[in-house]
Amino acid sequence: MKVLVWNENRHEQKNPKVSEIYPEGIHGAIKSFLTEAGHEVTTATLDEENHGLSDHLLNQTDVLIWWGHLAHDEVKDEWVEKIQQRVLDGMGLLVLHSGHFSKIFKKLMGTSCDLKWREADDKERLWVIDPTHPIVSGLGSYIELEKEEMYGEHFDIPAPDELVFVSWFEGGEVFRSGATYKRGRGKVFYFRPGHETYPTYHNKEIQTVIKNAVQWLNVTDTNQPTYGNSEPLESISKKG
Amino acid sequence: MKVLVWNENRHEQKNPKVSEIYPEGIHGAIKSFLTEAGHEVTTATLDEENHGLSDHLLNQTDVLIWWGHLAHDEVKDEWVEKIQQRVLDGMGLLVLHSGHFSKIFKKLMGTSCDLKWREADDKERLWVIDPTHPIVSGLGSYIELEKEEMYGEHFDIPAPDELVFVSWFEGGEVFRSGATYKRGRGKVFYFRPGHETYPTYHNKEIQTVIKNAVQWLNVTDTNQPTYGNSEPLESISKKG
Amino acid sequence: MKVLVWNENRHEQKNPKVSEIYPEGIHGAIKSFLTEAGHEVTTATLDEENHGLSDHLLNQTDVLIWWGHLAHDEVKDEWVEKIQQRVLDGMGLLVLHSGHFSKIFKKLMGTSCDLKWREADDKERLWVIDPTHPIVSGLGSYIELEKEEMYGEHFDIPAPDELVFVSWFEGGEVFRSGATYKRGRGKVFYFRPGHETYPTYHNKEIQTVIKNAVQWLNVTDTNQPTYGNSEPLESISKKG
Amino acid sequence: MKVLVWNENRHEQKNPKVSEIYPEGIHGAIKSFLTEAGHEVTTATLDEENHGLSDHLLNQTDVLIWWGHLAHDEVKDEWVEKIQQRVLDGMGLLVLHSGHFSKIFKKLMGTSCDLKWREADDKERLWVIDPTHPIVSGLGSYIELEKEEMYGEHFDIPAPDELVFVSWFEGGEVFRSGATYKRGRGKVFYFRPGHETYPTYHNKEIQTVIKNAVQWLNVTDTNQPTYGNSEPLESISKKG
Repeated sequence: MKVLVWNENRHEQKNPKVSEIYPEGIHGAIKSFLTEAGHEVTTATLDEENHGLSDHLLNQTDVLIWWGHLAHDEVKDEWVEKIQQRVLDGMGLLVLHSGHFSKIFKKLMGTSCDLKWREADDKERLWVIDPTHPIVSGLGSYIELEKEEMYGEHFDIPAPDELVFVSWFEGGEVFRSGATYKRGRGKVFYFRPGHETYPTYHNKEIQTVIKNAVQWLNVTDTNQPTYGNSEPLESISKKG
Repeated sequence: MKVLVWNENRHEQKNPKVSEIYPEGIHGAIKSFLTEAGHEVTTATLDEENHGLSDHLLNQTDVLIWWGHLAHDEVKDEWVEKIQQRVLDGMGLLVLHSGHFSKIFKKLMGTSCDLKWREADDKERLWVIDPTHPIVSGLGSYIELEKEEMYGEHFDIPAPDELVFVSWFEGGEVFRSGATYKRGRGKVFYFRPGHETYPTYHNKEIQTVIKNAVQWLNVTDTNQPTYGNSEPLESISKKG
Repeated sequence: MKVLVWNENRHEQKNPKVSEIYPEGIHGAIKSFLTEAGHEVTTATLDEENHGLSDHLLNQTDVLIWWGHLAHDEVKDEWVEKIQQRVLDGMGLLVLHSGHFSKIFKKLMGTSCDLKWREADDKERLWVIDPTHPIVSGLGSYIELEKEEMYGEHFDIPAPDELVFVSWFEGGEVFRSGATYKRGRGKVFYFRPGHETYPTYHNKEIQTVIKNAVQWLNVTDTNQPTYGNSEPLESISKKG
Repeated sequence: MKVLVWNENRHEQKNPKVSEIYPEGIHGAIKSFLTEAGHEVTTATLDEENHGLSDHLLNQTDVLIWWGHLAHDEVKDEWVEKIQQRVLDGMGLLVLHSGHFSKIFKKLMGTSCDLKWREADDKERLWVIDPTHPIVSGLGSYIELEKEEMYGEHFDIPAPDELVFVSWFEGGEVFRSGATYKRGRGKVFYFRPGHETYPTYHNKEIQTVIKNAVQWLNVTDTNQPTYGNSEPLESISKKG
């Protein structure tokens, strides 16, 4: 499967704490365990030309992973529209953490995608809500993260097609931290964890979720609807 | 309740057949039966200044009804964004017929909202799928329209929160013709019928659906979520 | 509106702590604030003849509230079937707390309705997930209960039609504590709080939720589907 | 994958027209194309001892297919409960056609599962509603069946988790003819076509749907939730 990991890659340049945790960037860390899982992984970052994107690259991508935070507004609308079109045409999209405020996620949801947040070393525990879902295969009842940024309800998203995880936070909040959507012929999964100052993407269970999600997001042999002006399939009676 | 009926109002100017059916415009026809039902109804049309809209008008509107077809692109993005914001803040939105391709509906759905169509005097029969829903109160098992434009699946929308009607068409197609969504603190209802060359909005059962929908779309005393940086509600342990 | 509050009423007879909190039984406490809200409220309990139920009583009930815990198995199947039939015919059903294991709730859900639990004076915080929902009208972002029994995920229910509340528990768990379903022409709301040894039903916000729920569960002028052998509405061509 | 095809197998004994179309029974026809697809297929029928079922057989079954019509009431409750338990434990269940009224489907749905019907050689056209779904892989926009029994809305089922097909009928009705549900750790798919007097299960596209459904219903490596009394994961403060 062809996976494209897109990362804003700004924190890594500015904050030594982040570059220490992710010496090859968040995109590099994700690429590493997905490559090991047998996928063909490419990375792209904001400050590359065209944000590292091209029509050719998007067209051959099965699943796109998106991490952004500081500079959502710098992503050009032209590329957001191209990504949306690719999702509608069947490309999977995994939106991570602060990507909840990315242009592409808001565009696909139609809501503000706002939430409560706090950077205070909260413990997080992600409870499995939907045990039938392929995304939770291999996990126990929950994933525990010693320290994470808190995201709390209300999370202003459409009601998910499937609610996969709900998080408990030490400071007293809850959050719908794993949510699936279908848009057009493509699938979308939002997965909450991954603040840049914590080693979340080195956690084996988080990696399991991301690997499962990539599998689930890949829609092969999709049905191809047709649209537009259509001849009748049955005869239509003449009316007065 | 304060209802705003927005109509593109172009067909009425160009096509005598349409102005004969709707001498006061589609907006006028809808205003008439909603006024009779006791609502305070205002109308606005595309070619008025600011499309007949103002911040003040939108802010005091409980439910906005939208009919457009030929000139979706002429609706200024600025107003589309203001309408979206009002929906997220609690205003109800009833999107009618060819409004499926309006900027505001596509923005709230995140999909192409494409479909099959045909102008061929198809008979349409709208079957009630959800008999508990307030929107179908007072109806029988179905509504029959002698002649309508056909809209057929696949309709490229997110899976509705509630599926209220499915249409049967004489030419052999089906369509999800009544679908509800929540977006932010507001509600959205898409209702299919109403091609400009047929007297659909004079049909009493169609009027019943629109009146029921206006009631259902009106969200009063909505809960007010807060967002942003939040203090913990519980003490957070010091981590290493 | 005619509300019937059904209570097992066994804890109240056995445990002085419970009868001290609810001197007139849990049913009496609920009856009290619903009567004050203007409803016509009847109560019924397990050990009355026919569990206090009759065909006449059920037939005239708009909304039934159900609290049971120790003796689910003593509720006769005959009455469970009659209640199910009334829900399918349009009666609202509010299932409280340990009613998750009642015969009627399991019958309407089709699953085990199992969950994690603990009696350990956990603090509970019920977060509002769906701010558009009439059931949360008048609440803030959450309801806090100083002490409650913990119920934790996984809660083995079908995915709710609407998820209204998610609870945070001091001991580290989360729970889908407010969930709506439609069954037939009736509506069902499951609401988690209300362990017998805590004064939960004296809490004003919990009372607000129950009063809102009673309003929302009442389906008036419901559409009446017909079933069975049906004549064609269109002519059917002769096949070979 | 281990597939068990259960068939009532009464029409085949009574009606020469049926045994001519399905000389090895409906179960035999389904077994044939699933065996060809590489599955290990067993069959069982109503009039065998224990309806052809055993604990051992159910326990090793990945996906159970169910066809019944005349004699739903003769299926012993004991076996219905065992099948329900297996679904909750992860076995897939494909309910075909008149199985909508089977004890097992009604038990898992919690509703009457009633509908309109007619035996009049209606043409049926099953439109794809969810093009992302693996169940429609390999199909075009619709499946057309020259003659089938009509099933019409309202179909008294809970709102499906996913709506995959909607049928158009020549006589004027529509029907939600492909619907998915999760129950416990298992998945359920209801698929409408297959009246005994028509050669529907010999249709290649219908076979494609059944083969796709069997793949989709098979939940491997399911997450295993735990239930019951649970120790706290966090310390709980002493209350007054």
